[in-house]
Order: sequence, then structure tokens, then C-alpha cells
Amino acid sequence: MRRLDASDPGFAAEFDALVNDRRESDSDVSADVAAIIARVKAEGDAALADYTAKFDRFDLDASGWSISKQECAEAYDALAPALRDALNLAAERIRAYHAAQLPQDRDYRDTAGVRLGARWNAVDAAGVYVPGGRAAYPSSVLMNILPAKVAGVERIVMMTPTPGGEVNPVVMAAAHIGGVDEIWRVGGAQAIAALAHGTNRVAPVDVVTGPGNAWVAEAKRQLYGVVGIDMVAGPSEIVVVADAKNEPHVIAADLLSQAEHDPTSQSILFTDDGDFADAVVENIEHQIRSLASGATMRASWVAYGAIIIVPNLTDAIPLCDRLAPEHLELAVDAAQADALFAKVRHAGSVFLGRQTPEAIGDYVAGPNHVLPTGRRARFSSGLSVTDFMKRTSFLALDEASLAAIGPAAVALAGAEGLPAHALSVQNRLK
Amino acid sequence: MRRLDASDPGFAAEFDALVNDRRESDSDVSADVAAIIARVKAEGDAALADYTAKFDRFDLDASGWSISKQECAEAYDALAPALRDALNLAAERIRAYHAAQLPQDRDYRDTAGVRLGARWNAVDAAGVYVPGGRAAYPSSVLMNILPAKVAGVERIVMMTPTPGGEVNPVVMAAAHIGGVDEIWRVGGAQAIAALAHGTNRVAPVDVVTGPGNAWVAEAKRQLYGVVGIDMVAGPSEIVVVADAKNEPHVIAADLLSQAEHDPTSQSILFTDDGDFADAVVENIEHQIRSLASGATMRASWVAYGAIIIVPNLTDAIPLCDRLAPEHLELAVDAAQADALFAKVRHAGSVFLGRQTPEAIGDYVAGPNHVLPTGRRARFSSGLSVTDFMKRTSFLALDEASLAAIGPAAVALAGAEGLPAHALSVQNRLK
Repeated sequence: MRRLDASDPGFAAEFDALVNDRRESDSDVSADVAAIIARVKAEGDAALADYTAKFDRFDLDASGWSISKQECAEAYDALAPALRDALNLAAERIRAYHAAQLPQDRDYRDTAGVRLGARWNAVDAAGVYVPGGRAAYPSSVLMNILPAKVAGVERIVMMTPTPGGEVNPVVMAAAHIGGVDEIWRVGGAQAIAALAHGTNRVAPVDVVTGPGNAWVAEAKRQLYGVVGIDMVAGPSEIVVVADAKNEPHVIAADLLSQAEHDPTSQSILFTDDGDFADAVVENIEHQIRSLASGATMRASWVAYGAIIIVPNLTDAIPLCDRLAPEHLELAVDAAQADALFAKVRHAGSVFLGRQTPEAIGDYVAGPNHVLPTGRRARFSSGLSVTDFMKRTSFLALDEASLAAIGPAAVALAGAEGLPAHALSVQNRLK
Repeated sequence: MRRLDASDPGFAAEFDALVNDRRESDSDVSADVAAIIARVKAEGDAALADYTAKFDRFDLDASGWSISKQECAEAYDALAPALRDALNLAAERIRAYHAAQLPQDRDYRDTAGVRLGARWNAVDAAGVYVPGGRAAYPSSVLMNILPAKVAGVERIVMMTPTPGGEVNPVVMAAAHIGGVDEIWRVGGAQAIAALAHGTNRVAPVDVVTGPGNAWVAEAKRQLYGVVGIDMVAGPSEIVVVADAKNEPHVIAADLLSQAEHDPTSQSILFTDDGDFADAVVENIEHQIRSLASGATMRASWVAYGAIIIVPNLTDAIPLCDRLAPEHLELAVDAAQADALFAKVRHAGSVFLGRQTPEAIGDYVAGPNHVLPTGRRARFSSGLSVTDFMKRTSFLALDEASLAAIGPAAVALAGAEGLPAHALSVQNRLK
């Protein structure tokens, strides 16, 4: 854990180092992934069966390629009622937030008499990757599938590895709630390749989203352009801006809620009170010892955790913008939270006030928890319905409007040395 | 040129072949590009100077690294008045169309008392690549810069190679109109690397857009994630749906207006009249012989051109959707154009009616001419202001709303095995 003080003479350099800290894997899996993609493209289902036997110790041909809708419905029915209600509340709120995101079509005539517009359509099919093992989160299933569903995508395909045959029943229940159309027991780069290129069994999709390990992330990167993808995702991160009026154990738990995701997660506290910072650190140490996810939290906190003392909390905001964090918690009084938020330019999602822990946004608030990491909030946004849609622009001219603006097009085509462009306009000018 | 008839028994297979036709370069420049990026990252300006001397025969240190705003203003002043007016009309219409695209912020309280919303901000800096040589189009300068400007981007950086020192004065004039802040005389993969990673001279940007050759395209693909990019672009294409009431020479010019871009461009005509098709082909042959861009048009038309006879123009639309073309011209009566367009799902931009040649959209109509190619209109959209912006979601709960939805978050965190998530919510529940 690093402790920085903005009033120290060496602060600027230390903060630069924090900003430029590289937490993402440097392991180069690109050649392996390229080989897997090429083989799935060439051999299709046979390659999927072979990789799945090798990596997941699972025989697709003998034990079944897919998980049925019926099995998902049964998993849903078997859930403890409180958990079922929680999933349904989450789904309902995620649906509502994303429905309000649906973009408006445009169709208007401007002063030159030109009809102009844009129309949105959903993609035909979306693929959602769901990891097996540690990161198999039902909340991620909802966060990826529901925006596609709200966008109007007619075919939603889930890919998930089932190592040794094991499936997570809560993930299946979430797939049931989300309304997934197909689930294939395939994981890794081979699953992404199948979604992008298609096989005999798996028809190709148009957009692929969802978290995954380094192989999955690299496969998405390599297949970007063949299909649309959500984003290049890295380890999770949180920045908390908190004053001394917070209870230290509350802020400690907020910081640790990211640290428990992965040893490469990052939690950073900005505060204007050194004693409060000490108390938070003490509470973090205590909670790391007492919670089941302590080992992961300790690894993350020791390697990447940071406390930054600022003279005034307002001074934290430009520093936050440099970090462009995935999650930013402004744990101050409501009015001050609004004032600080008004100055924020770069963050994936912002949590305002003392009663808004980041974890509420992971599950039930409604906004998407798939957010840009690794300073990418400088230029990218959380997952939304528009990631599963595309916009077609359109225009219509008549003789009068073409007469008004056509000659300018002819002049520009001439300047660019494109005579057929000029001719196609000139042919219609009287 | 291929001629297909939808009523032929072999049509489905022939059309599949057309859809899957690969026009994009297979040349693997990825290793070369990776080496260039690594060297620019390590050596900065020295690498830029060296590559520019080698590839563009231009000595940056001796002859100047940048083109000044003053030089651009002078190029603008020196333009022929008709061309200057045409550029200004184009700029004004592009600005107006894109200003209407600006997304709305959201900030509302839902029935559970949760405050929810999303706020859009421009990125801090955008880089626009402008090729030298054949594809140095002032219209592309406007189409890339103006959306960034309308989005509110405060720093816009142009990168353009000046082989042997040569610059295109109309491109400089367009940069003046657009309001570019910096122009560097650097091209190729090294220009994209400088924009993404920065050098001593060139501060890094957040988003990189603009067309380029295979090296530029591959550099953007490799640096996607370090910066945002517009899209993976391929050769241009047009699909024209036309009945026999059109004049054949008019439709011929429309088809050739894409064919003249590049030998790998593609022009496809759907019509319900074989005699009309014959007349269009005859006119194409004639225009290829008479226009200055004939050699490029001939190469494109011979290799990739197609005429498809359909029993009824309505039958063309599902086939168009399979092609998901960059440009779709519906050259029929206005009412029928609307009816056909209502059925279109996948196209970059659609041109409605007999008085709307595609070329009008390349220059002055207002919608962006940077559009998805190579069937990517299935999942992606033309360049827009939102490519230069990003959305920050936000939420605020109070005691009552946290009491309403917090327990569900605790239940889900428990099911996912994330105790610090649960604790951070529980800490705030009374």
C-alpha cells in the first residue's frame, strides 16, 4: 500500500507513478489465441470438442453440447426464495434503467429542404461470455444479457465453460431470467471464435460481450471488426473520496469490496484527514483478517492500494480525472457530493453521498456494472443498449434541394479528383 | 463483373459467394506495425524523425515538424471562391447534423427513491489521421474533425504525411475551417503510435479516427484499448436498388462513384428489369472509357461489380441486409423508397429516391461519410459525436432507498462469495 501526501514536494512524481502503474497482464497469449481462432474457423465443432476435452476435461459429444432452457428454468425454481427475489429485483431495475437508454430515431427536413435522419436497429444476434470458476457471477449474466434484450436482439447466445461438467445453478437461473436462447458448454478463446465465425452447431453472432481471462480478452481483441465487442477489460478498481465524518470501518469495507475481486484490483482513498486515513487502514487490516476473501484482498491492497491525503477534497477531483477510475465513490454530504461530481470529467460510474456504496451498483441499482477500467473512462463508457444496436443514417433530396446543395458537391468532387462523384450529381441537376 | 438472377436455381450459392467475397487486404503487416509502435513508444520523436525520413523522404528536424494555423489560414484564403464556399457549406451542414446528435444527460429519481442518471463528457483530446496521396480528401478532414469539435473536444490533433514536403492546400483549408489545433507532418503507423503513446513533442490523445492504408489500420487495431478508435475500415461499397424508370446513365454513374475510389471498391445493382440492367452495363462501359478515373473504376467493376436481377424490388431488401452495405441507394419513387427503407435492417447510410445520389452524402448533406464497410453495418454505425464523448453513469441512495434495495444486494453478494461487497452494504443498513 502506498501513502501519498499532496503537500509533499515529491507528490507529482509519485502520483504520476501511481497513474502509470501497469496492473494488466503482460503475458503474451496472442500467438496461442491466433492459433485457436484459426483452428476453430477451419475445423468448427471438432476443434471446439477437442479444446473442451483438453482445457475443461469435458466430453461435449458424450455429455452434451448445450444447457437447455428447461434446465435453466429448473435451476431458477430450485433457488432459495430470497435469492430468487433478489435476482428478480435486480433484473427489473436493470431493465428499467436500460429501457430509458433506448435511443430516439430522427427524421426531419432542414431549411434547405433536405430530409435527414437516423434510425436505430438492434443487431440480429449477440453472444455473451460467462466465465466458469471464480468469476462466474450471475449479476454479470444479467448485466450483459438484459441490455441486449432491451435493445431488441432476437437471438442471445451464452458461452460458458463447464469444467468437469460443473455448472453454477445461480448463473443458470440468471440466464433463465434474462431469456437466453442458447447456452453452449464451451469456454476460452475457442468460445469467442465460435461466436464470431460460427460452426455447424453455433450460428455466428454480431456482437460479443462479457468478461473473461487473458485468452478470452485477447480473442475478443483479435476478432474485433469481425464482430462488435464491448470493450477491452482489465482488473477492477475503485476510488473513494471521503471526509472524516464517515465511519472508518464503512470506508474500509468499500475499499475492500474491489480488492476482493482479484489480486490485481486497485483501491484508492482520497481524504483530507490523516487521522481518518490511519483509522481506515487499521480497519482494513482487521477486515482482511476476518473475511473469507482475505487472501485476495491482502494481495490487492498490499500491491496496489493507496491512500492520498489532500489539503481539500476539491483538490482530489483533478487527480481522480487523471486516474479516470471505473468506480468513484464520493462519500461526503449530499450537497458536497453534487458539487464535487460537477467537476468530474473521467469516471465509469459515480456513487454520490454516504448511503451509496459501490456494491449497490454491482447488483441492484440499475446502471450497468460493465465499466471501463485501466484509465479507459477517458474515452469509453459502460455497457449500454446501444452496444447491441447500430444507427443507419438516411437522406432524401428532391429537385429543389439538390439544386440548392448539389453544385457544392460537384465542386468538392472536382477538387478531390473524383469525376464519377461529380457526374452522379450533375446528371440530376437541370 | 458478376450477373446473378434470383430466379436461377444456383442463385443462393452464388449470392453466398458474393456475400462472403473477401475484398480486404490479406497482407500481414502486424509484425511490422508492432515493431514501429514499440520503437515510437521507446524512442519518441527520434523514431518519428527516422521513419519520416525513410518513408516520406522528409527531414522533420531540418524542414519543420508541423504545419501552422497561419499556413492553414493562408491556404484557405488562397482557395478559389467557389471551392471555399463549397467547403463552408459542407462544414455548416455537417455541423448542424452532428449538433442534433448530441446526447441528452439523464438525472431522475425512480419509484424506489433511487436517484439515477448518466452524464456525457467530451474526451480531452482527439487525433485525426489524414492520408497523403490519393486518399487525401478535404471532405474527410471535415467529416472527422467537425464531430469532435461539436462534441466539445478541446484539443484536436491532425497527423498527415507530407511526402517530399508536399501538402494538399485544400486539406489545409479544411483543417482551418474545422479548427484543428495542431498538425504534425507524420504519417503511417508511427503517427498513430505517437497519438496513442505521446512523445516529447506530441502529447497523447484519447481517441484516434481517420482513414489510412493497411499500416495505419493495423496500428489503430493494435492500439485499440490504449485509445478509442472509430472503426476497422475496409474498401468502400455501394448497393443501388433501381427500377427501369431511372435513366441508365444516371445509375451507371452512381455505381461508378464508388468504383472510382479504389480497385477493391464494390458496386452492386439490384433491379427487376434485365433490359435496364443491360443498358446500365453499357453505360458503365462507356463512362469508364471517358472519365479520368477509368482505370480504377474498371479494375473495381471487373473484379467486384455485380448486377442482380430480382423478380420484385422488395425481394432485394433481405439480400441487401445480408450484404449490410456501407451505402444503399433506393432509386425508386419516393413512396416506394420509404416502403423499402422500412424493411432495411443493416446499412451504414441510405439514400432515398431518384434525386439522392450517394455522392451528395459524401460532401454536403450533413450525415457522416465515415461508415461501416465489409458487412460491419450489421453491428456498427457511422462516425458520430458520441465517438468523441463518453458517458458516466451515477447514482445516489438515501437511508430509505438503501433499505428498500440493499438487502437484495447483500443476498446476491453472498451468492457470489464476495463478503466485502455484502459488508459494505450491510454497514449502512440500520
